[in-house]
Amino acid sequence: MSIEIGKRIWAIPEGYIPDWSNGPKPEMVSHEAACILNASEKEAHVEITIYFEDRDPAGPYKITVQSKRTKHIRFNNLDDPEPVPKDTNYSSVITSDVPVVVQHTRLDSRQAENALVSTLAYPVE
Amino acid sequence: MSIEIGKRIWAIPEGYIPDWSNGPKPEMVSHEAACILNASEKEAHVEITIYFEDRDPAGPYKITVQSKRTKHIRFNNLDDPEPVPKDTNYSSVITSDVPVVVQHTRLDSRQAENALVSTLAYPVE
Amino acid sequence: MSIEIGKRIWAIPEGYIPDWSNGPKPEMVSHEAACILNASEKEAHVEITIYFEDRDPAGPYKITVQSKRTKHIRFNNLDDPEPVPKDTNYSSVITSDVPVVVQHTRLDSRQAENALVSTLAYPVE
Amino acid sequence: MSIEIGKRIWAIPEGYIPDWSNGPKPEMVSHEAACILNASEKEAHVEITIYFEDRDPAGPYKITVQSKRTKHIRFNNLDDPEPVPKDTNYSSVITSDVPVVVQHTRLDSRQAENALVSTLAYPVE
Repeated sequence: MSIEIGKRIWAIPEGYIPDWSNGPKPEMVSHEAACILNASEKEAHVEITIYFEDRDPAGPYKITVQSKRTKHIRFNNLDDPEPVPKDTNYSSVITSDVPVVVQHTRLDSRQAENALVSTLAYPVE
Repeated sequence: MSIEIGKRIWAIPEGYIPDWSNGPKPEMVSHEAACILNASEKEAHVEITIYFEDRDPAGPYKITVQSKRTKHIRFNNLDDPEPVPKDTNYSSVITSDVPVVVQHTRLDSRQAENALVSTLAYPVE
Repeated sequence: MSIEIGKRIWAIPEGYIPDWSNGPKPEMVSHEAACILNASEKEAHVEITIYFEDRDPAGPYKITVQSKRTKHIRFNNLDDPEPVPKDTNYSSVITSDVPVVVQHTRLDSRQAENALVSTLAYPVE
Repeated sequence: MSIEIGKRIWAIPEGYIPDWSNGPKPEMVSHEAACILNASEKEAHVEITIYFEDRDPAGPYKITVQSKRTKHIRFNNLDDPEPVPKDTNYSSVITSDVPVVVQHTRLDSRQAENALVSTLAYPVE
């Protein structure tokens, strides 16, 4: 397919990793994820920058998404150059060298039952 | 109406069919759905391709949505050319020969109470 | 403000009014709503058309949203020209003679705890 | 980065602050928030106007978001020029003098378990 599916820059204003969980691991651990679809013919080199309320941004966190693959990235698991702090508001900007599509999901299992939110990231360019 | 309502290519980065359920069937079975509105004067021939994290894409799954009709497609029910695996992350790209509008919904009933998420798919072109 | 806030045609592919509820009325009655913001200087004359899976569309349902006002319309309450059936999948197209912004929300209280979904409608034109 | 990340005008049609809560404070207090990302090199001067169903708009509420920072604003906490009423439907329009990205989130803890919704605001211009 020669049509470009997606954009190269995406933003997710809402970010927050709850600091406790409830339920069987690993499915029910509270987490925040970015789902990245690379439907292109080329490997995508993705960089995530995290913005905070009261300190300089963290990152870039580097991730590779192979051609015609999807990757569900849990922010909880990012640790290079530094872990993403829990119980802290943040935003993220995601850039890629090939077009991708990005969706944001949170599973909040702090109470007995889960709350799930999911929304497309904002396509910048 | 001569205005085109929708686009011909849509992407949904987030996909995941939980592998267990809780509650009365069929309403409360965990599922993942794409709701497709065809407000046009012509029948829509829709094709869904599923992208995975560690294997080649599956599909196309072929669906027809009649003129001035909506169709709520459960990914759980797709089985030609192959079923969509449960407990597996995936993304989907949906193409149509006439403009349609696509929304994604998941009912997750793995715990006693349901979690619902819904978001518009990403309009590619 | 001379900038137009919004569009004149919106689509919501996902529609479903659960047919039972749980919890104090009226806040906790299962419902599906379209929130319409008219930030313009003129009254908005809004028409909603409902598309189904297996019958011709219903409507138009006519609603007026005054200048610089919002209106939260419950699909449950629409009854002219006919009520919107419960436990039935539908989509909707919303048109207005002045620009508006439309968001879709569902409160599903079929189980003891509520599930809430909300997403912007798709801006057509 | 010389690319503009975001827009200067955003709209959120859906607004409602539940008037009771359930669970530990402050995390579990029912609230409605706008998350604003300012990825630009300049401080953002943000103004929020609130639209109601049956009275004139309130505001502007003025907020500053520093360069390369995010701010998660709880509508519950806005009180100048007036508090945002609870148990009342409203919409909001958010303007900024530099490009920002806006996402809307609600935590509804009126019942024992939380319901979470989150969606991008509508990018006007």
